[in-house]
Amino acid sequence: MRKRVRIAVDAMGGDNAPESQVLGGIQAAKEMSDSIEVTLVGDESKLSGILKSHNCSLENLYIVNAKEVISMDDSPSDAFKIKPDSSLTVALKLQNEKKVDALISAGNTGAVLSASTLMLGRIKGVSRPTIGSLFPTDAGKTMLFDVGATVDCRAKHLFEFAQMGSIYMSYIFNIKNPRVGLLSVGEEKSKGNDVTLEAYKMLENSNLNFIGNVEGRDVLRGKAEIIVCDGFVGNIVLKFAESVLDVLKSKFKQYADKGIWNKVKVGLSYGTLKEVIKDFDYQGYGGVPLLGVNGVAIIGHGKSTPLAVRNMIMRAFETVSKGVNIEIERAIKLT
Amino acid sequence: MRKRVRIAVDAMGGDNAPESQVLGGIQAAKEMSDSIEVTLVGDESKLSGILKSHNCSLENLYIVNAKEVISMDDSPSDAFKIKPDSSLTVALKLQNEKKVDALISAGNTGAVLSASTLMLGRIKGVSRPTIGSLFPTDAGKTMLFDVGATVDCRAKHLFEFAQMGSIYMSYIFNIKNPRVGLLSVGEEKSKGNDVTLEAYKMLENSNLNFIGNVEGRDVLRGKAEIIVCDGFVGNIVLKFAESVLDVLKSKFKQYADKGIWNKVKVGLSYGTLKEVIKDFDYQGYGGVPLLGVNGVAIIGHGKSTPLAVRNMIMRAFETVSKGVNIEIERAIKLT
Repeated sequence: MRKRVRIAVDAMGGDNAPESQVLGGIQAAKEMSDSIEVTLVGDESKLSGILKSHNCSLENLYIVNAKEVISMDDSPSDAFKIKPDSSLTVALKLQNEKKVDALISAGNTGAVLSASTLMLGRIKGVSRPTIGSLFPTDAGKTMLFDVGATVDCRAKHLFEFAQMGSIYMSYIFNIKNPRVGLLSVGEEKSKGNDVTLEAYKMLENSNLNFIGNVEGRDVLRGKAEIIVCDGFVGNIVLKFAESVLDVLKSKFKQYADKGIWNKVKVGLSYGTLKEVIKDFDYQGYGGVPLLGVNGVAIIGHGKSTPLAVRNMIMRAFETVSKGVNIEIERAIKLT
Repeated sequence: MRKRVRIAVDAMGGDNAPESQVLGGIQAAKEMSDSIEVTLVGDESKLSGILKSHNCSLENLYIVNAKEVISMDDSPSDAFKIKPDSSLTVALKLQNEKKVDALISAGNTGAVLSASTLMLGRIKGVSRPTIGSLFPTDAGKTMLFDVGATVDCRAKHLFEFAQMGSIYMSYIFNIKNPRVGLLSVGEEKSKGNDVTLEAYKMLENSNLNFIGNVEGRDVLRGKAEIIVCDGFVGNIVLKFAESVLDVLKSKFKQYADKGIWNKVKVGLSYGTLKEVIKDFDYQGYGGVPLLGVNGVAIIGHGKSTPLAVRNMIMRAFETVSKGVNIEIERAIKLT
């Protein structure tokens, strides 16, 4: 029998934890009993209580006890040190000790990022880790690297993000020769800031499928499968994008509150709007990868549902089984 | 009689030029005959033809001939030199020669920016010019500085944008003690890149109404009237924001194309969506200011309608008559 991929779930991280985490873990363990082992890390009595209430006993689903929980209020940079027995810290220790192959967490994003980077270390040759975030486009999928792992970037870092992102998109989403765009303020080669101008030259002379600069308006237009920028820019774009749907919802509500006829109109429209924008639903993708660390960490949305957790486990499984990190190490070595 | 404010209209710049420019100019000149003189700069025969077709002859509406037109394809950085007889270049020459007080243009934004910066020079003490762009929010108005005038910024530049932005928002929109936010990747003082961390300290120790860091999600939420960032970040956020509505429209269309019932649903919803998002309509504001130049330049959307052009003229009028530049020079001197 082929060795199964062992995935640790930070079962206490997320707005709906541990319910969603346990249910998502059950779903993945059932579907992939031949190829996945799921380890739920967290408060043993709570976790086993949920399993019992669902009459669930699977031979490929385990619990590892962790008494502490990292909350959204804990300091991202040192929460894992201050709470050494937190579900996140314990799950990463398991990976360090080679007892599991990957982590998924929908907890405090900053804490997951810091803990993973510091506890797992970096892949040989990688200068900085990067988090990608998926944007749905008409043409398919675009992943923006970096959205917050590395805020101050040099050109070399952007170049490495492009390398790692290309490997991720081609291995995980089976996109052949994915296109790389450099996020800038104009399409011409001469447009950009000091860092992007230098990164342009490096990308141009590489074996990546570099299509040149892309602009803010191109992120949702599917011009490239990978768009690179520093974590400062990417984080701002991501958070801005997330806020747009909230603002739109609140505007619909305000409009409805203005009178009964408006309420009827919004009632008729809202369902359509929801269907129209369902591609923007994070659940389908589950989570985003932290690339460059010497291990596997998939970071999820705080609101992750069981389906989202299940999908994060699938992403972790693919990342391990397709050898994404081995390919990254190879690619970085060659340049 | 009080001296009237003399405003030059780049009548050939914009997708609907010269029609919209002439009609908007007529509207403003009629409404403000006591306080505004409008000079339409462009192809004399075309402009006078449009005036004649509207039976329009106003004592405060002039034409100055300019034979060339800067198109969207012309290089932004040197179009005004290559085409010295373009409507844009001629309009700015009039301002240099103190024959007019302000310029409005809906033409090639990059060209307007370069030409205005180089031909008008900077206000004494200002290190870099900045373009602000208005975002409608639940709470009122937020202007993001910079959206593309200065791509590589030092902390000092961000600080000056905050000073200039505060003056603009308080004088033009009558906002007392407007709040200033620093765009960053977290609310805590410790979050940001090297430049914003330094700018934070400068803003904190100033007499501006600084509220600290704001995030991407806060731009549309009205947390601050002025949000500062470098022109690289601001330009990407602005272009991303502009693309969201287009993407939404295209998604509605795709959804409608899937079947007759979908078409009906979209038909019912579209009007509501349009009403809901009408605050995002650029026409109401007309144009955005280029601040820091030793003169007045209001930059408009390429698609500017007569109403938008009329409103740009109003913005230019207010900027001159309220002495925004004098206040900027004073504020910069004091720091």
